[in-house]
Amino acid sequence: MTGSTLLIREITSDEFALVWPAFRQVVAGGDVLAQAPDTTFEQAQRMWTAPPTRAFVAERDGAVLGSYMFRPNQPGLGDHVANAGYVTSPEARNQGIARALCEHSLRTAAEAGFTAMQFNFVVETNVSAVHLWASCGFDIVGRVPGAFRHAGLGPVDALIMYRRLDPVAR
Amino acid sequence: MTGSTLLIREITSDEFALVWPAFRQVVAGGDVLAQAPDTTFEQAQRMWTAPPTRAFVAERDGAVLGSYMFRPNQPGLGDHVANAGYVTSPEARNQGIARALCEHSLRTAAEAGFTAMQFNFVVETNVSAVHLWASCGFDIVGRVPGAFRHAGLGPVDALIMYRRLDPVAR
Repeated sequence: MTGSTLLIREITSDEFALVWPAFRQVVAGGDVLAQAPDTTFEQAQRMWTAPPTRAFVAERDGAVLGSYMFRPNQPGLGDHVANAGYVTSPEARNQGIARALCEHSLRTAAEAGFTAMQFNFVVETNVSAVHLWASCGFDIVGRVPGAFRHAGLGPVDALIMYRRLDPVAR
Repeated sequence: MTGSTLLIREITSDEFALVWPAFRQVVAGGDVLAQAPDTTFEQAQRMWTAPPTRAFVAERDGAVLGSYMFRPNQPGLGDHVANAGYVTSPEARNQGIARALCEHSLRTAAEAGFTAMQFNFVVETNVSAVHLWASCGFDIVGRVPGAFRHAGLGPVDALIMYRRLDPVAR
């Protein structure tokens, strides 16, 4: 942890190159995200930044240490529940980046009018993430047997996690 | 129930007009699907038929009585689990159409290589659907509080339902 301030700001789709190094390293492990290790830049860019998805980066001293995105988890009559995803640069682990991203996303999604947030696919063996999301107020509301083909462990469960968002004063 | 055979066949995206009357009537009620009552033809067509989604219709005596679609529920390391959706024409209710569609989809998805099927958004108050999917072998594996803004009842829960698919002899 350095003394420099962590700045979290929204990016455009054209800035996805800022996210790509962290994204690529996270999916390369085959142990965290559903996206395949050979996901292309264009596929990742679309998934992470194509509207209505909104993407943000966390920067310290000009270096991007992580990113998150959020979007409606369902269309129409389900579009009050946000879905979000997070990546942290491997070299920036254990610095509170993921927690800072999550807390920022909870505020930003609430400000955007969402009343709850849902994660559809938290890999059960990604224990640090499961604990982090729990400490950020998420409950496990579902479990899909063997939904993730873990690169090292074979089929493991995916968890669905959920929390209401705090209303925003307007 | 008539004596005529129910024919279930795959359609192309260009044939979505066959599905649209049933789809439009189902979403109009605001009590079954996440899609808003004012979903456009083009939005519905994309959601129901754009690859990798595959769509099918059930016909009897030349009339389309219902439709289903399926696709991977996740990319990459989660693409062995299918997601599916079903609509039945309101005038064809209580004729076993939805069950026939579901059973057909279980076979077709298994033949396509999927090993399980997951429904992400079964409205809890759609009791006949919940019972039907249960009778087709689906378990409730999750519940998202208030995830659906029911047109008549306000916020109700969405259920996540899941079953393994029977392996296909090849």
